[in-house]
Formats: sequence, structure tokens, C-alpha cells
Amino acid sequence: MITIDRMIEQALLEDIHTGDITTKAVVPQRRPAEARLIAKEGLVVAGLLIAGRVFSRLDSEVIFKNNYAEGDHLEKGAVMAVINGDAADLLMGERVALNILQRMCGIATLTSRYVAAVEGTNARIVDTRKTTPGLREIEKYAVRIGGGHNHRTGLYDGVLIKENHIAAAGGISEAVRRARAYIPHTLKIEIETENLMQVDEALKAGADIIMLDNMTLDDMRTAVATIAGQAVVEASGGVNLETVRAIAETGVDIISVGALTHSPRAMDISMLLD
Amino acid sequence: MITIDRMIEQALLEDIHTGDITTKAVVPQRRPAEARLIAKEGLVVAGLLIAGRVFSRLDSEVIFKNNYAEGDHLEKGAVMAVINGDAADLLMGERVALNILQRMCGIATLTSRYVAAVEGTNARIVDTRKTTPGLREIEKYAVRIGGGHNHRTGLYDGVLIKENHIAAAGGISEAVRRARAYIPHTLKIEIETENLMQVDEALKAGADIIMLDNMTLDDMRTAVATIAGQAVVEASGGVNLETVRAIAETGVDIISVGALTHSPRAMDISMLLD
Amino acid sequence: MITIDRMIEQALLEDIHTGDITTKAVVPQRRPAEARLIAKEGLVVAGLLIAGRVFSRLDSEVIFKNNYAEGDHLEKGAVMAVINGDAADLLMGERVALNILQRMCGIATLTSRYVAAVEGTNARIVDTRKTTPGLREIEKYAVRIGGGHNHRTGLYDGVLIKENHIAAAGGISEAVRRARAYIPHTLKIEIETENLMQVDEALKAGADIIMLDNMTLDDMRTAVATIAGQAVVEASGGVNLETVRAIAETGVDIISVGALTHSPRAMDISMLLD
Amino acid sequence: MITIDRMIEQALLEDIHTGDITTKAVVPQRRPAEARLIAKEGLVVAGLLIAGRVFSRLDSEVIFKNNYAEGDHLEKGAVMAVINGDAADLLMGERVALNILQRMCGIATLTSRYVAAVEGTNARIVDTRKTTPGLREIEKYAVRIGGGHNHRTGLYDGVLIKENHIAAAGGISEAVRRARAYIPHTLKIEIETENLMQVDEALKAGADIIMLDNMTLDDMRTAVATIAGQAVVEASGGVNLETVRAIAETGVDIISVGALTHSPRAMDISMLLD
Amino acid sequence: MITIDRMIEQALLEDIHTGDITTKAVVPQRRPAEARLIAKEGLVVAGLLIAGRVFSRLDSEVIFKNNYAEGDHLEKGAVMAVINGDAADLLMGERVALNILQRMCGIATLTSRYVAAVEGTNARIVDTRKTTPGLREIEKYAVRIGGGHNHRTGLYDGVLIKENHIAAAGGISEAVRRARAYIPHTLKIEIETENLMQVDEALKAGADIIMLDNMTLDDMRTAVATIAGQAVVEASGGVNLETVRAIAETGVDIISVGALTHSPRAMDISMLLD
Amino acid sequence: MITIDRMIEQALLEDIHTGDITTKAVVPQRRPAEARLIAKEGLVVAGLLIAGRVFSRLDSEVIFKNNYAEGDHLEKGAVMAVINGDAADLLMGERVALNILQRMCGIATLTSRYVAAVEGTNARIVDTRKTTPGLREIEKYAVRIGGGHNHRTGLYDGVLIKENHIAAAGGISEAVRRARAYIPHTLKIEIETENLMQVDEALKAGADIIMLDNMTLDDMRTAVATIAGQAVVEASGGVNLETVRAIAETGVDIISVGALTHSPRAMDISMLLD
Repeated sequence: MITIDRMIEQALLEDIHTGDITTKAVVPQRRPAEARLIAKEGLVVAGLLIAGRVFSRLDSEVIFKNNYAEGDHLEKGAVMAVINGDAADLLMGERVALNILQRMCGIATLTSRYVAAVEGTNARIVDTRKTTPGLREIEKYAVRIGGGHNHRTGLYDGVLIKENHIAAAGGISEAVRRARAYIPHTLKIEIETENLMQVDEALKAGADIIMLDNMTLDDMRTAVATIAGQAVVEASGGVNLETVRAIAETGVDIISVGALTHSPRAMDISMLLD
Repeated sequence: MITIDRMIEQALLEDIHTGDITTKAVVPQRRPAEARLIAKEGLVVAGLLIAGRVFSRLDSEVIFKNNYAEGDHLEKGAVMAVINGDAADLLMGERVALNILQRMCGIATLTSRYVAAVEGTNARIVDTRKTTPGLREIEKYAVRIGGGHNHRTGLYDGVLIKENHIAAAGGISEAVRRARAYIPHTLKIEIETENLMQVDEALKAGADIIMLDNMTLDDMRTAVATIAGQAVVEASGGVNLETVRAIAETGVDIISVGALTHSPRAMDISMLLD
Repeated sequence: MITIDRMIEQALLEDIHTGDITTKAVVPQRRPAEARLIAKEGLVVAGLLIAGRVFSRLDSEVIFKNNYAEGDHLEKGAVMAVINGDAADLLMGERVALNILQRMCGIATLTSRYVAAVEGTNARIVDTRKTTPGLREIEKYAVRIGGGHNHRTGLYDGVLIKENHIAAAGGISEAVRRARAYIPHTLKIEIETENLMQVDEALKAGADIIMLDNMTLDDMRTAVATIAGQAVVEASGGVNLETVRAIAETGVDIISVGALTHSPRAMDISMLLD
Repeated sequence: MITIDRMIEQALLEDIHTGDITTKAVVPQRRPAEARLIAKEGLVVAGLLIAGRVFSRLDSEVIFKNNYAEGDHLEKGAVMAVINGDAADLLMGERVALNILQRMCGIATLTSRYVAAVEGTNARIVDTRKTTPGLREIEKYAVRIGGGHNHRTGLYDGVLIKENHIAAAGGISEAVRRARAYIPHTLKIEIETENLMQVDEALKAGADIIMLDNMTLDDMRTAVATIAGQAVVEASGGVNLETVRAIAETGVDIISVGALTHSPRAMDISMLLD
Repeated sequence: MITIDRMIEQALLEDIHTGDITTKAVVPQRRPAEARLIAKEGLVVAGLLIAGRVFSRLDSEVIFKNNYAEGDHLEKGAVMAVINGDAADLLMGERVALNILQRMCGIATLTSRYVAAVEGTNARIVDTRKTTPGLREIEKYAVRIGGGHNHRTGLYDGVLIKENHIAAAGGISEAVRRARAYIPHTLKIEIETENLMQVDEALKAGADIIMLDNMTLDDMRTAVATIAGQAVVEASGGVNLETVRAIAETGVDIISVGALTHSPRAMDISMLLD
Repeated sequence: MITIDRMIEQALLEDIHTGDITTKAVVPQRRPAEARLIAKEGLVVAGLLIAGRVFSRLDSEVIFKNNYAEGDHLEKGAVMAVINGDAADLLMGERVALNILQRMCGIATLTSRYVAAVEGTNARIVDTRKTTPGLREIEKYAVRIGGGHNHRTGLYDGVLIKENHIAAAGGISEAVRRARAYIPHTLKIEIETENLMQVDEALKAGADIIMLDNMTLDDMRTAVATIAGQAVVEASGGVNLETVRAIAETGVDIISVGALTHSPRAMDISMLLD
């Protein structure tokens, strides 16, 4: 939680900086209050305890009680959490907590729709590196809570050989060879392919994972048949809620969806102070 | 630019961390390359120079040439910028630069649609504090680039007296009095009102700005007439691209739109390496 | 308190760094002690709880009991606070706590003399940006505790159009127009004027606040009469304890005093360990 | 310069934060300008190059030309430096640069008066740990520039055994023994004494430096005679510009003056932009 | 290089802090000098450019010319690099640069001996997480330069299921199942086994890598035969320069050696200033 | 402990970063466990409480009970500490805690052997600045625990005039004069000498400490006789466990040993989880 706590502190500094002047001017000190976080629409819960840490950072005596577990599907109107503390602290933390929570629930909810769409198939829905700068850790967490899985976290914990890498190495086979010689034995090697010829090459080169980039459904089916379990197959590009089921039914193992993290709609959640 | 440079550094650390293992393994060192940033859809440019600083942070010798100015409206296919530098640096910076640029262009583009929708009226489109943790500065900048204006930056540079503050103070008039006594003379005082009776109270209390929160168009018109230029009038709540024109035509001065920053769609932009 | 806690940590690191070698060498571990903070001259209390946090940062079990409230006027000899904790921690925190407290009490005490000097007039005593690098937040707080008010915190939360800005814009009227077009609706616009002609211009341009910079008492009176409540009037320059009353009696609303923060005398306070 | 550059960055962030809204709104971009730093009163120069780094931090292309060397005594009206750069950068850096420079010149000027007062005697004027939190390094530098010397920097690089340490150890002799056993052989041991009896004890205990705390001139003379060069003698307490000469003439080696850093008057320096 | 530059800055602050008082006192300013880094014993070069960045951080005008490439085997007396710059900067950076370089060369040299010892076999020499706090990135880099390979960087980029994890999951098979369900598809799963029965279980559970922990050479040979290429085989425990060849000849793929980073001997390197 | 806590946090971030994926995947949440730290060889304990803080940083409810005091000599098999807490936290902190503890015990153990070797002589064993970047504070602490003493911490808290300084100043006498004029009166001046002629010069120049660099035993004896208590005598260079006793018997006061911190062997310590 060290990295998440730092993010929370940074977010509080961004919003409060030298002080919440409205609250300091208007609200008496040491005034106990209770607040409730309300789901104003149906959503999948993600980030509730992280939202709670926002208030704890302001005042270690705040009591944050979550009514639901991460991943729960809530109806509109659900009271997500009840918070007891000093009124000034609750008012000061409100916006930061909601900004985090609304985004995380947005990602989890969107992910859960993709996951539902491929139910019964073999395909995993995974995220990408198209995340918000500074929030990758909590966004990838929200994807998991929504039922999805994670792709590599960054450039440092996974190998993904793309077009430019292939060109620089002079071919798929040489690129894989160089990667295998360099990387830890704990990592797999993924190749991005544009067509079936490249799929063949990647397979021969011994790729552990073959990404089918923007291929037609037919090509995906052919690729899956060709690869035949010798490598993990990932579909990427042109994925949306309309197309994802058909893609999953081609038999691919993994479907990566950038929109999960780059364009989720923030869920409508509000804080009511009594 | 100190704060933005820190954000960039943090984003690079998040993605690259101990190294881009694919590029290190596969791409030869000191290999000059040229990359182009391409708009894959029509958009309003925002953040192009910030994206450029991502590459400069990795290598001070990268040359980033932007083809358009901030705020330009681009057609699909436009080459937004040309980048020359070491291939490894371009590959390493690509995702971070795009993550920033796609979000900022998304905000500017969305803002420009709101601004266009109220063209000819008196109303300013402004943002809110519903921003992404850590990115408020660049998000509020993108709103300005899109033709919008900014509301207060945080809790520290503006007074917004809401329901809970009013309750804590025992009434609008006392809340305004306390705020006036406390705050710098350089700041205005804004009151959030729920109904016309509160509008009257706020006006009598000498509020500089009166926010009409979730009021009907009729009530907004009445409020505008009552206030009659004695305070700035801000409409808030229930604003979307369908409703914003009618709200603007009630005569309000300011329309605040949370969606500008909490739920923009990332624009589709890609980097091509030659 | 996040920013203040960081300042405290930084101050402790500056003084203690790798360790208080005298105390480590000479004082036995785990030796309970009680210390008292004594006002060695009459003063206005400011920063007592901040001084207390210095000790808490070293050891969360230190008990700091303040005997007075912020803003209290103390006689020489008053026991400001009693601190119980480990002797080593009290000795290690002593200098940092006193350095903060002596400066803050100095500012509050000096401010209170200015405030007393204008008693019965309409004028507010305010600070400036002439603060100690890194300590602006606590120095502006001490000004408030001394009965003064704050001017803008920094360049980011207030508009002050000075001579150079006016020249760059090509005149007061254009400068105000540009500022109004750019800034949040929550901020007022202040113009610095050098003479009565500029006062007229600023008034016509719709400035919210007009600063009279280094004007004679006569000119100030004329300006106040001309402005006649249409803008807030701030006097600046040449203000000291001898001149401040006469300036206040010209009818200005605000008197800004750089000396409050750039040249306060540190109050004489010492810590006695029993 | 790493620590000083960090202090500068922090000071700029404190003042500019998310932006100088006045300058952004009013001043055209890329407008070359020249500024001069003017001494508005006689002073000793200290910190001129540090002030210059403030502008370089904002824009590496700013050219800062200092007209005087550190330690020079300037007449009122002297042009201390000429700065060429973008107008916006000069305006943004002005206040931070002046806040640093005015304080440092204040300290150097005050120190030079103490140094002048003891001219011809054997005594060194030294500072104390009564510095401004976060600024100790540049304040102790300014003392040196003013002709003074430094006492230990913090608790970590010098041993000063005070009353409480003596009590905790059970006597001067035991305290010195413990310190000698613990500390690096590169450091001297200083004892604070309240009376002549303690001076004798400290001498017998083998103290390297004996501080005479708040003693009368007669006692100081006796102590100097008793110590007779076997230890460095430092006078402390009750030192001001009226008393310092007489103290120096007692023959002490060192006179420590807290006021040099805790209560200097900021020198009057302004920046003129052409 | 962002993380490495931060490490360098931290190391410089640790050593120089408020200043190199000897150099400031004794060495004239702006005195050009040339220094040479000399290998006082035979060694494998690693970290030379990192050592160079130490001097660049102090003064961007220092010219650092390395005479050898990373990985070169040097004889005693070799001039590793020539550095030109201000004498004061060279003296100030000397110790930090050497501390880094001596350790990195020590690791590379030790690694190269292990690599040489297994030459002709199939085995890779890899490091572990037994690195120096704060230096993992450069230590793992030095291992690669010495001809070794890296194991996972930390707990976040590799799965290694040990005894306690197996116990907590209730068995190897369940532990692998949980890991597979949770982790990105880009990572392999490694199981630590204590005996041949566990090797069988791990193989059946579908482990990608099987670690043989502290097994006899006979058991290793049996394990390699059993696994028969279905998983990567890693030997761990009891590895030293006497035993490593025999272990490699059992046919294992990977041999992990904690001593590479936890107990290298610093190479003897000195800097001569002309 | 502020600096040490920062080092611990940095070390945890380095190892755990975005999460211990093995433990998250496999180990159930909130599972209480007990772990023991076992000495797998005889060693001198150093850093036990610092290791404990690693676990406290992960979870403030962990209970760390040390069975031995710093400096105790342990037999192989000794249970150094017992830790109770959540299993996941114990597993996550294990490696970082051990990496710190193994290194610190290694330094203390090695130091204790040097100290034992000179027992009965007058000589102090001291460390150098040849420490691990980022760990100097805890390494110098471990030296003290092992019975050694510290040399200066860095370039800022001690004066050591070496060959290059002497050359730059134009002689030992001038170098000492400059240092004495510049440095705080609380510090001693040390001169590094290469031969007996320089010893004479240093003595005449009034050096407080004279370092005999790489001299023969005979020269050391002569130097000690010449200096005759007028300065502290430090031997440096070519010190190892074979030579140290003879060096000590020459009568030098101080023997500095770089190997204590640059090349200790990590002690074998493991953590067992029940």
C-alpha cells in the first residue's frame, strides 16, 4: 500500500494544498459528523477501501465502514460506506475520495460488462498500458476486481515484440532469439503479428504468446487452429462490447481492451453528510 | 513547468521502471529514427508540447516538432508532430506520451463541443474539481485549450459554500459573514443554492457568485432575473450536450460540467516509427 | 497538515541528519523527562501546536500540553507548554521546535501591533508574498493569528496587475480585459496604481481591487473618495508602525505590510528540561 | 549545489504552484526583457548567484550577470545584477529570487557589523543553530560571506554538552568521557559552563572548547586567564552590537550570536524590468 | 536512467551534504584538472558510465572519457577512464564514483568467474533478490555485464512459489492453479521443490520452472531426467565456485547464486588527480 | 530514525513495487503467522531493530520481539527474533529485512574481529567513507556495534587534507592555515602524509590528526615517536586481519579499515515461517 498511499497523499495535496478555506472559515472545529457514500447508479464496487484511506490520511481517527466487498454488483441507491469523523475532515476528503472511487468503479463496471459478454468462452479479458499516468496500479487492480485480468504492468515486466522491434532486429526469429538471450527465465515472450504469415513465423521462432493485431475473425480462427495450443493467443485491436463476443468465439485465449482504462465513464457516486 | 515535469517523470517511472526489456534486448543502441504522431480521428489538439517533453526527459537530444498549435481542430489523418531521436528512446516514451496526449485531446475536444453548443449565448463553460488525481493541472489546461474556462483549482483558491457549510454555520448569511471575515480580499464568495428562496438569501447575504444547483430551466430564468447582475450566476448539475444550450439560454453566466474531466473519451492517436 | 508535517520533517533532517551525537553519547536511553516552553518576553502565541508536532514526529508517545491558545497575549515568564517524553527526544527536538515557534510568535506579535495601531478604522492589515522560502504557509497563518489577514498566497490564486504587466498589455484597460477573459470567475482582479490618473483608469477598467502604491496621504484620500466603494482599496509601500495609523485613516480597506514576514524579530522563548 | 537547487525548486513551487495567472493572462509569450536588481540601501552582497539560479531553474536560457562579488559592500542604488530572458520568466522568478537575496544580504550585512565591531581583537563571530527551518545552509553561507564563521551545522557534526547532558551523565567529567568514547576522533568536544567552577571542571575533564554562557565580563576575563590556551573559549548569551566589543576584549576566541540568523532585517532590494 | 540518476544524487547528498569543507577551504575555485581511474587489480569493467554520471551531476561540463567498454577484462594498472573538469568537482565526486564502480566491478568480476566455471554446459548463472537495498537495478545490471543473467527483479515481476506458499494453499497443485488464475499471461510460474516427490508434483501441476532447492547432485540429475524439458530447471542453494561446475553438469538450465550480489569483494580502483 | 525509515521504505518499494504477486495469488488474506529469524552461523548482532521496522512499515500491528541485544555474539542456530503478524506481510518483508540484517551483521562481525585483533593495544578501529551508496548511516552504526569507531561521516563533517589538496594549496602549512581559517572551531584538521618528512611538516603546521598512509611499520613507529602525543596518529592502507595487530603495536591511535564496509561477507540468516 506504500505506492497507493503516496498517490492518495499527492491527490490530497493537489486539492487541499494550503487549506480548504471554505471549511476553515465556516465550519466549527471538532464537530463530529457522519457521511454516507451513495451509488447513484448501478455499478461494480472497486476501490472502496482506498477511498477510505483518503479520510484516514487526513485524520487517523476517522472510522470508515464499507458495506460491500470489492467486486459486488450494486443497485442504484446502495449505501456503499458509512464514514464517521470530524465534519471538516469529511468535507476536505470528499472530492479526492470520490474522484478515486468513481473512476475505479467505472473501470470495474466496464470490465465486468466485457467479462459478461465473453462468458462461457475460453477468453480472458485483459487490460493494456493505456492507463492514466500515475494511476496504473489502481486501474489494473480495478480491472481485476471487475473480473478481468492484467497484461504486463509496464515495459519492465513483460516482453512484447512489436513491428518496430522486429524491423530493428531484422526479423521475428532474430528478435525472439535476442529477447530469450537477454530476459529473465521467468518471463514469456510475446510477438505482435499483423497477418497469418507472421503468425507462422512467430510460432516457428518459439514465441510463448502470439498477439493477433487487428485481424479479421476468419484470420483469428485460422491462427488459433494453426497455433493449436503451442502458444497463448491474444487478440488485440477493434475490440468493443459489440465485437468482443465474436472475437472470443474464435478461440483466442486473451482479448486485450484499451478502453477499460483509457475511456471508462466515471460512475455517479455522491457523499451525503448528515 | 516544474509540476508538469514531475508528473512526466512519475509517469515514465511507472511505465519503464527498471527498463524497457524488450527494447533493450532487441533494438540496437544509437539507432536514429523518426516518428510521427497521427490523429486517427478528428480532434482538438491539447498537450502536444507536454507529450514532447516526455521524449526530452528520456533524451535531451530528441527533436520534437509540433505541426499544429494548441487548440487547432484537426481532421483524421493529420500528422500532429514529428519526432527525431534514438529509436530506443522513441519506443520507450511512446506509450506515456500517448497516454497523456490522448487524454488531453479528449478533454479539449469534448470541451470544444460544449463551447460550440452555447455559442452566441453569454455562458462560459467551466470545469470542476472532478479531475483525475494527479492530473488536475493538465486537465484544467486542456479545458482552457478547448475554449472552456476554469472554476477554482482546488479547495485553497476559491470559496464555495455548500449545503453542509450552510448547515454548520446556521444559515447562508452567517456563512457568508464568516467567509468574508476569513478569506483574502482577492477571492470571491460563491454560494450553492437549491431553490429560489436560497437564491434570495444568498443575494441578500452579498454572495459574489450564486450557483443554481440542479434547478429547472424555469427556476434558472427566475433566478437570473432576480439576481439581475448583482452576482455572477452559475448553473450546475444535469448538464450534458443535449441540455447545455437550453441552460445557457436562461441567461446564466457560467455552466460547470464535471464530465469534461471525469469522463472524456481518449482520442485515438498513434505513433508511427519509420 | 500534510505540507506542515513535511516542513517539520525537513527541518528535523536539517538539524539532526545522521544523529544528535552529543545526546547519543551522553544521555542514557529511555529516560523520561519533562520540559517547559517559557516565554522570555511578552508575546502573542502562534505555532504552539506546530511546535508540538516536532516532538511527536520524533516520538509518537510524547505528550505535548499547550497552556495557551493561538493568539493569546502572554506576559514574560509564561509557561507556554509542558512536554513529557523521552529526554533524548526532547533534547533532539528542542532547537527545531523553538526555531519554528520563535519565528511564528515573532510574526504574530508584530502583526498584532499593526492591528492595534489601526484599531477603530476600517482597514485590514494584510501580508505579502515577501515570506521566507518554504515557510509561507505557516507565516501567513501566524499573520492571521496576530489579527491580520492574508493577501493572495502566491502567483496562482490571485491576480495582481503591476506596472510591467500594464506595459506589456498596452494599458490598464486591455490588461484587465485579458485577465477577465482568462481567469476563473472566482477571483478578483487587482491593479497596482502609481498615481490618481491610473486610479481613474483602473476604476473605468472595472478592477475589483485598486492598490495605491507609495502614494501620499492626500492622494490616498482622493483615491478613496473617487473610488467610493466601487472597488476595494489597498494601500502599499512605506508602511511602518509610525505611518500605519494615518494611512488607515485615509479610509483605505486594506494595508499590506511586507515587514510582517520578511523582518520579524524572533521572540525569545526557551525550553527548560527538568 | 544539489541541496540549494532543491530549496530553490521548493520555493518556486510554493509561489508559482499551478501558474502565475496574471502573467499568463496579460503578458505575451516569448517577449525578451532585461531586468536589474537594485540595492535600495547600503548592504553586503550575499546570495547573488543563488538568486540567479532561481531564474535559470525557470528557463535555462536566462542570462544572469552579477556586477559584484559575494561580500562586496554596496552603496544604495548599486545595480547588483542584470538579467536577460523571457519577460514572463523574469516576472515569475522575481519574488522568490528577492526573498532569498534580501534575507541573505540581511544576514551578511548584519554579520559584517559584528565583525567590524570586534576588529583588532582575537575573536571570531560565529553563528548558531537558531536558523530558519530549511535555510540553514544558505544562512550559514551568508554568515561566512559577511566575515563571520560557522559553529557546528547541526546536532550531527559537533558535540556541545549542555546543562541537561551534564545532569544526565552525572557530571562534566563523565560526560566528556562518554563523548570521547563515542565520537569520531575528528571532532572536538565543547562544554557549556555557567560559572567559573564549571570552567575548572571542564578544563580538567579535557574539553577542547569551553563555552562561557551568559557570564559577566569579569568572569569571562578570569576564565580566559584560567584556561590559558588549553581550550578554545567561546562566549555566548547577551551578545549584541553594543556589548560585543567588550566581550571580545576579554580575550575569548569565539563569540556566538543567534541574532545573525534568527532576526536579521531583510535588505531592501528591488527588481526593475525594462 | 531516471532511477539511476536518483541513486547517484542520493549518494552525493549522503557524502557531500552541505559541502566538502576541505576542498572549499583549501582548493582554489575554477582550477582545471585531469583525473584517471586506475584498476589496481585485474577486473571486469561494469558501471563505468554510471561512475561518469556522478561527475556530470556535480558539473555538467565535466568530460568523462571511458577507455574500455562494459564487460571488458582489464589487467592491473589499466587506465579505465580519464576525467577532465574542475578540480573541486573531481575531488568531491571521487569517493561516490569509486564506491559505485568498485562494487559494480566486484559483482561483474565475480559473476564472470562463475560463468567461466560453467562454460560449455547448458547452465545460465543468475542472480537473486539478495541485493543491497537501493542498488538492485545496478547490481543486476553488473551481473549481466559479467555474463550472468537475471532472475526476477522483485516480488512484482515473477512468481516463485515457496514452501510457505505451498503450505498456505494446501498443496503444489492448488498453489499453481491459484497463481495461474491470478497472474498476467506474460509470466511463468516457478515452484521451489525440496525433494523428488515435489518435483513430480510440480511437473504435474504444470509449473513452468522448477527450482531444485539444496538437492544432491544425484537428485538433480534425476530431476533433470524426469522433467525432460517440460519445465525449466533451476538449481539453488549451496552454490559456490567449487561446486558450480558439478551442478551445471547435472543438466540444470539455471543456477542461482546469491553471493554474486550479497557478498562481492569491492575491486581495488583508485582515482589519480594530476 | 527518519533517514533509516526512508531507506526502509525505498527498499520495500524496490522489492515489492506494485505487489508481491505470488503471495497475493496464493496466500489467503488475514492469516496470522509466526516467523523466526535464525542465525545460520556464528555472528555479531547488528540491525535487529531496523529489520523489525521493515515489518512494522508493512503493517503497524506486527509484533517483533528481538531475543538479543545489538552487539551480542551469537552461536549458529540462535533464534535472533520472533515475529508475529499476518502471513502475507511476513512473506513480503522477509527478503528486505534479511538483506539489511545480513549486511549489518556482516559488518559488525567483521569489525569485531579487527577489534579483537588489536585488543590490549591503544588503537581504535575506525571505518572510512568506502561505504555502500545510500547505506552509510546504518553501515557506520554496524561498525560501532561491532566495537569499532567512526571516522568522519562525509565530506561535510571532517577535514582530511590529502595529497591533491596539499598540491593545490602549495604545501601542508598553507593548506592547514586555509582550513583553520575556514572551518568551524568544532572540527579538527587531519593531514594525510606519505612519508616522515611530511609528518614533520604536518606537525609543525599544527595538524590535529596525522594520517600515516601506507607506511612501513618502522616508519609508523618513528612517526609515533616524533609526534609524541602532539597530534592523534591514524594508520591507513594495507590493513587486514593479518597486519592489523602489528600496526596497532606501533602505537598509533587510530587504524582505518575500508574493508569493514566495502567488502563484508553477508552473514547467513534465514527466516522460518511456522
